[in-house]
Parts: sequence; structure tokens; C-alpha cells
Amino acid sequence: MKRHRSLLALALFVLCGTGRAAPAVERWGIEEIVLHGPAGGNPFVDVELSARFSRGDRSIDVAGFYDGDGVYRVRFLPDEPGEWRYETRSNRPELNGQAGRFEVTAPSPGNHGPVQVRDTFHFAYANGTPYRPIGTTCYAWTHQPEPLEEQTLRTLAHAPFNKLRMCVFPKSYAYNRAEPTRYPFAGTPPNSWDFARFDPEFFRHLERRVGQLRDLGIEADLILLHPYDKGHWGFDRMTPEQDDRYLRHIVARLAAYRNVWWSLANEWDFLKEKRESDWDRMFRIIRDADPYGHLRSIHNGTVLYNHTHPWVTHASIQNGSAVEDAGRAVLYRDAYRKPIVFDEVKYEGDIPERWGHLPAEEMVHRFWEGTVAGTYVGHGETYRDPDDIIWWAKGGNLRGQSPSRIAFLRSILDAGPRGGFEPIDKWQDWSIGGRVGVYYLVYLGRTAPREWSVVLPRAGLDGPLDLRAEVIDTWGMTIAPIGGILHLRPKDRYTYTCPDRPRIDLPGKPYMAIRFRRAP
Amino acid sequence: MKRHRSLLALALFVLCGTGRAAPAVERWGIEEIVLHGPAGGNPFVDVELSARFSRGDRSIDVAGFYDGDGVYRVRFLPDEPGEWRYETRSNRPELNGQAGRFEVTAPSPGNHGPVQVRDTFHFAYANGTPYRPIGTTCYAWTHQPEPLEEQTLRTLAHAPFNKLRMCVFPKSYAYNRAEPTRYPFAGTPPNSWDFARFDPEFFRHLERRVGQLRDLGIEADLILLHPYDKGHWGFDRMTPEQDDRYLRHIVARLAAYRNVWWSLANEWDFLKEKRESDWDRMFRIIRDADPYGHLRSIHNGTVLYNHTHPWVTHASIQNGSAVEDAGRAVLYRDAYRKPIVFDEVKYEGDIPERWGHLPAEEMVHRFWEGTVAGTYVGHGETYRDPDDIIWWAKGGNLRGQSPSRIAFLRSILDAGPRGGFEPIDKWQDWSIGGRVGVYYLVYLGRTAPREWSVVLPRAGLDGPLDLRAEVIDTWGMTIAPIGGILHLRPKDRYTYTCPDRPRIDLPGKPYMAIRFRRAP
Repeated sequence: MKRHRSLLALALFVLCGTGRAAPAVERWGIEEIVLHGPAGGNPFVDVELSARFSRGDRSIDVAGFYDGDGVYRVRFLPDEPGEWRYETRSNRPELNGQAGRFEVTAPSPGNHGPVQVRDTFHFAYANGTPYRPIGTTCYAWTHQPEPLEEQTLRTLAHAPFNKLRMCVFPKSYAYNRAEPTRYPFAGTPPNSWDFARFDPEFFRHLERRVGQLRDLGIEADLILLHPYDKGHWGFDRMTPEQDDRYLRHIVARLAAYRNVWWSLANEWDFLKEKRESDWDRMFRIIRDADPYGHLRSIHNGTVLYNHTHPWVTHASIQNGSAVEDAGRAVLYRDAYRKPIVFDEVKYEGDIPERWGHLPAEEMVHRFWEGTVAGTYVGHGETYRDPDDIIWWAKGGNLRGQSPSRIAFLRSILDAGPRGGFEPIDKWQDWSIGGRVGVYYLVYLGRTAPREWSVVLPRAGLDGPLDLRAEVIDTWGMTIAPIGGILHLRPKDRYTYTCPDRPRIDLPGKPYMAIRFRRAP
Repeated sequence: MKRHRSLLALALFVLCGTGRAAPAVERWGIEEIVLHGPAGGNPFVDVELSARFSRGDRSIDVAGFYDGDGVYRVRFLPDEPGEWRYETRSNRPELNGQAGRFEVTAPSPGNHGPVQVRDTFHFAYANGTPYRPIGTTCYAWTHQPEPLEEQTLRTLAHAPFNKLRMCVFPKSYAYNRAEPTRYPFAGTPPNSWDFARFDPEFFRHLERRVGQLRDLGIEADLILLHPYDKGHWGFDRMTPEQDDRYLRHIVARLAAYRNVWWSLANEWDFLKEKRESDWDRMFRIIRDADPYGHLRSIHNGTVLYNHTHPWVTHASIQNGSAVEDAGRAVLYRDAYRKPIVFDEVKYEGDIPERWGHLPAEEMVHRFWEGTVAGTYVGHGETYRDPDDIIWWAKGGNLRGQSPSRIAFLRSILDAGPRGGFEPIDKWQDWSIGGRVGVYYLVYLGRTAPREWSVVLPRAGLDGPLDLRAEVIDTWGMTIAPIGGILHLRPKDRYTYTCPDRPRIDLPGKPYMAIRFRRAP
């Protein structure tokens, strides 16, 4: 029966021609089917709509959504070039059986596709290009006045960040008490909402901003729920049914944006109205609703979610102390065997809260400790402002001294091992990351030695090792090559040394590193 | 039908009297039913035997086992005083339907029952008495000549340890090349075995040793599989069927010993013949076979098992670096939300291997860092010996300087919070454990200050806090009270201080601690 129906559909499709023929779309771009249907009743709950996209033997079912004023959309993220076809399905005849075809072309420069996990602890774009997250945080930037939002985008265009943590819902918290201009649901602020009716204008605005981030090469780490509400609007205490409908709606709207990551919550454990099983359920809903498998995570307050669950793609962790020391950061890798992203390690700034007054040096230090541990670190900035325009929440301008050093680190990462940094000899208190035999990045942290004895872990090595070395000032952003080739040889069962070059001179400053790369 | 059969059994039981009437047994002692049956064929696989033990509405099914020479045993660990009844079931008529009753009396002094998890991160005996593991390791002590095994028991009788890690199977490894006197299977050494026939003598010897540990108040952390074989005997590469039969046999034999813990493996990831799913399966077999729910864990080499699995009761971890710093140790608590037992943190000794030459001070230091992090640390000793009699593997005598300090720490733990130590303000780089408002143990580690500013975390406090203080020399094993009461008051949003007693004098030595307890 099923096959008969498919054949019938194909025959109808061929007979009826192309339906609405969309213009060509690039690979990992967005193909959007626009349909017109009923505007009465509550289309958000009354109308079911999806489309089956197919190419050759493959077919992908994608949920559509109602966008107000009788307009329905189905958005598709094509991952393969060539001709694709689609056909819609709906419980409303005018939306059902709409078919068409479109061509998917090669991606434009800079479009590498969505980011995925690679080699257990790292990431890559779908086209294989390494992706090394260097994130920052502007929780409520899309709930600000237009000029401020535009300023945030200008700042991001010149900042080193390739990931941004941002909340879908507005934020009511210290330094963040203004009402937003848009709300996600129909109703009356602050807390009289029809949770069964989304406000399309709110979501269209969000989509525009996510698209602008995409065009800047920035992944949008979308925080779907957060506790910075406490019932003020009540978006933190919807019923399971309301939560699930909201999650399906946002996935239907945004999954076709290649730069979207799903961060189920910020400080999930501070959302006291939900139980842990609610989070498990919501994760599964996102996983099942998203046809493309965008990255999924959840960020903690003081209680870690169980990141070993199969629906978690990477561990998103708040814990500043864990990246004060590479020997701490590696422990999470061991526990989770997934990429570790320290999304919140306290912020560079000067507010009284202890999570918000790191010196810039300490912020940068944490990036380096995390890097040599084979993990990823995120930035945030909380400098006081007379108008409470603080980057961490509202965006605007960056004032700190860490971003330029983070840009410098990013250049080191980009020139680093293609597969990412792995801790070398992980539980032996070296702060050394890289790849055995090929690349060693030695980070000296807060110590300020005048020389460094050339000793590297023997782990994984066999035979001689010839390396070139450079001294890196992570704060001063300089790289000074050391002349010649270092010929390393086994010293004892655990180390290699360099008999003809036993020491490297250093300037006696903190935050130095030494980079070794295999001599060609 | 089932009810009819039960009634019939009861009637038969009443009519036939008590069967074999066992003498009274104490609560959490061992009730053993001895039966005689077939000795031909292979009773280990041909004969099924179990018994249902019941008291009032409760009934517990317990597997029996063949002990050679036509003797069959069913062992039961009664957890409730009063009259119990039993009836056997078997596929052999002479072993089937044997019934009896016995009286369970109050436990003798020192018998607190099996150890269980309590309050997420800690342990207690079944009678509620706190259990704070202070373990040591003698992997192969039961495979040594009789006099050496007896010496090990004499040493343990005067040592501070209340848990012993020990392997069921013999060990073939550095410093451990001698053949044992007994083998677990019928066959010919070194590697021609009938894995379907256990050698009762081997297991009876093991049971005797486990019982002797019990009588010394020591939990036997029984390591069921290990990689220190590499095919020499081949106990590391049995088939799944052989593994599972072995696991069921050892559970049937030993689960009635109240001091047994199941450690599924040592360095599980070094057993290259098995897949991770094999370990999951074996865990479930142990869990399902053990009627009493003894503690279950698995110990790692360099890859951590997923200790969040529901069949793991506590995390048994090898990682020396993790307890060099309380800020590392707490991370495992967060990841697993189960008791964290650092069973291997490198060993006090002087062998060339880097896991075997910790100074005694460092061994003790790791115990203290682990303690204030709310975790538990294990001891081991590897001093060179002309006959390779090294405590860590063979037992014998302790020579190190850490055990007396560990005994001192044990006295601190015993006088500590009944519910165990919790890290105070866990991610803020205090090395302080205890209970908010009641007990603070400040550990100063390798620093050697001449004074300590009285500053405690404000976390969880509200209002004034009056404390008595003592200066503890963890190495010198002294406790010096500080006269008077310290009246602590809030200093800022994160700390409490003592305005009238701002500093405590210290001797300028490392490894000092300060204990604060609420003034009565």
C-alpha cells in the first residue's frame, strides 16, 4: 500500500509539474516553502503541516509552522547538491500535497555547513573544516533597542568569537530589568499569555538576528529556557505541554539555519519548577524534531546534568575553577567522552559579584589552560556601565583586554593540529596539549620562570623526535622562534629531553607558552 | 496455580516439620543450607539449585552452588531478626523441596551489616552506623604462601584500613610472577582449563580469607576480573558465557558475606578482549544475581567507565592527580552524583614506576585533599623488597610512614560530621570540607604559612557563627586547641570573618589543617 501511494504521488508530481518552483538554493542554505492557508481558529494548534524533501533514495520529513496572517512555512536545510523534490502533508487540504522541486548548488565561500562533533572531543563543520569554538555570551542581546542590537553585530564583526550564547526568552535579572519590545506569545505583559499562540513578530526578529550571526560566521548557541524570569513573565514555568509545543515551534522555525545549536537551558538546575525527567523529555523532543541533528547541550548552575545521556552531543559547563588548571579541565573529558565546552568560567569585568570580576589576564589564562587540556573555553564581559549596558547580557561594545588576546589564541588554534588539541600524558601534571610526536603546546601559566628545561612527556613516543620551538607571550601576543632544531631523545621511561639544548630562555613573565612543532 | 503450589508447599512444610534445623544465626551473619546431591556429570552446569527464604510477607530467592564431592550449599544473609523459613528448588529431586526454619538473632558487637550508599556521596552500614572507607590494596594476597597470608592478616589487624582491594584471580605482572598454589578452574596450569568446572578448594580458600577480613571489620572490595594475566592463564579472556557463569558462581558463594563489595574489574579498559557492552552486561548479571544489593563498582586504567549507569553504586577511580587538589576531586562528585572513592592515587614507595614512588607525605596529602573535597581516598604501598614481597600486591608487612597518619586522619573522620564531609562552596578554591554552620575542616596542604586569616565561606550561612578551633598537624599527628570561642560575622557577600580574632598562628610547616566546630 505504501509503495502504491508513493508511486501515485510521484505520478501526480510528474503530471502536475513542479508546483511552486523555488529558486536555486545553496548547499546548507535555507529552502523555504511558503504556503497560504487558514488564519481562523488557532492555526498553531489546529493545523498540522510538514513536507517530505527527497533526492534519490533519501527523504527527510520536516515540520512546517504557522507564521501569522494565513502564511505557513516549511524550511529545509539541504545537505547535498543537486535536484531535490518536496511534497507537503497537512490536515488542511489547501496545505496538503503541494509539491515542487528545486536545485541545490555549491555552497558560497565561508559556508561550511552545520557544526558536528568529530573525534569524540572536537568539532568540525559538515564539509570537514575544523571548527574550534571560541564563544562569548550576550544573553539578552536580541531584546534590546534596535541601535544597540546593531552595535552588537558591528562589535561581533570585529571580535574573535565564532559562537554566541543567547537566550530566546527575555531576561529579568540584575542589571536587566527593562521590558523587551517583543514577546514570544500573544497576550499582555508582563504575565498574561496565551501560551498556545506564538507571536510571529518575536520569532521573525530572532530569526533575522540568527541569520546575521550566520553571515558573520558565528554559531548561535540558542538557550531555549532559562531561570532569569522567576515568574515575572512565567516563561520559566510553562506546563510540559506548553514547553513541548514551544520547543517544536522553535525547531520548526530555526533548524534550517545551519549555525544553530540547541542549548536546552542556562543554569537548568535553577529552574526549580521542572524535574530532571522533564529535561530528559525535552531533550528527546528536540532530538526527534530536528531533522539535521544540530548540536544539543545544557548548561548548569551548580548541579551538572548527566551529559553521558545519548541525546547530549557535548558538555556545556559552567565552572570557573575547572579551567584555572588543565589538570582539572581534563577530568570532564574523562567523565563524559564528549567535547567539553566551558561556556561560563566567570567573566572579565568589575561588578561586585564574584562571577563577574575576573582580571583580563585571568580570563585569558583560563582559555589557555582549557586549550592545553583539550577542551574549549568561552568568554564573557561584565564591566560596570552607567546604563547597565553590559556585554554579557545586552551586547553593545567590548571594553576588556581579553578579546584581543583571545584573537591571538584563536590564531594559534587555527595553526594547530587539524584534529584539535589533546592533552599529552593527561594525569601527570603537565600543562601540555597537542598531538604526540607532532605538536606540543607547553603552557606555563602564572609561573614566571627565566628558563625552561626542555622535558616533554614520552607518552606515545618511540625513537628520536626533532622539533622546532617558539616562545609565545600569550598576553603580549608575540611569537619568538628559537633558532635551529631541537633533537629530543628519551631521558627515562617517562620523559624526553634535548641533550644539546637543555634549556630555553624565557623573559621571567607570567602567561608564557612554548610551541613545539615537528621539524620537516 | 501458583498460589495452590505455595499453599501445598506450606502444608508439606508444616507436616514434615523443620527439615534440617539450622542453629540460630545472627542478623547479617550467614545461614548456610548444606545438601547432598549428584556428583556425576558436571554439577556446575547440570544442576540448578536455589532456595526461597521467607519471613512474614517477604521472600528472597537465593542461588545455591556446587561445592564438590556431592555437596551443595545455599548461603543466605538475613537482614531481619526473627524466624525465617526456606525451601529449596532444584531440577534434581534430591535437592528439591528441602525446607526448614531458623532463628535470626541480634547481631554481635561490631556487626553493623553490609555497607550501603547514604546521602548520595557517602556510605553507612545497614544499621545506620556511618562507614567512611579508608582502603588499602593487596591485589594478590590470597595467592601467597600460607605464612605470608597470615602475616597480612596480622598487619591488617593493627592497620587503619577498613577496606581492602583484592583480586579473585591470581596476578601475573611486574614483581608478581610466581604461580599460585590454587587455581579457580579444573585443569592444568598455566592455561589448559575447563572453564565450566570451578575448583572448590580455590573458592573455599577465598571465602575463608574474606571471612577473616569481615572479622577484622574490613570490607573486601573483591576485584572480579583484571588485566594482569594477558593470556598467561587466560582468565582475562573467557567467553561471555564463561564470564557470566563465573560471575554467578562467585555471587552465589560470596554474596552472603556482609563485607563483600563487587569491583567488576581493575583497569577494565586494559582488558582489550572485552567491549564496553560486555561490562554493561556483566554489571547487570551481578546486580540481578545478588539478592542483597552489595556495592558495585569498576576501576579504570586511563578510560573511565560511565559511572552514571544505574548499576554502578559508586565511582571507583584511579587518578593520582585528581587528589593533589580538592578542586579537582570535587569535579567527579559533580559528574557522577555518587560516592567517589579514589581507590588508586599512586602508592607510597620507591619502585621506579611513577605510580609507585610517592613520598609518604604526598600519600597523606592526597588523603586530606580528597577528604575536604567530600570524597574518599585509598592507600597502597610499593617499597622495593629483595623477595618482591610488596604490600600493594602480596601483602605482608607495612613499612611506610603514611599508615599511622592515615590512622590519625581516620580518627578525625570518626569525630567528624556523622553524614560525612561535604565541600563547602565547592568551586571557589577553598580547601574546606565539613558541614555548613557546624563543622569546617580547612586544609592548607603544601603551603607553610605562619598565620592564617580567619575567613570562611559564607555559603549557606545566615547570622552569627560561634566556633571553637583547633590547629591540626596532619603529619605530626597533633591537635592543638585554640582557647576561647571565635565569633564569626559576615564580612562581605561571600565570606565570614572574626573581627576580635582575625588571625590564627601556625608553625610555618606544610600539611597543617584547622578544624572549626560549632561552639555549644
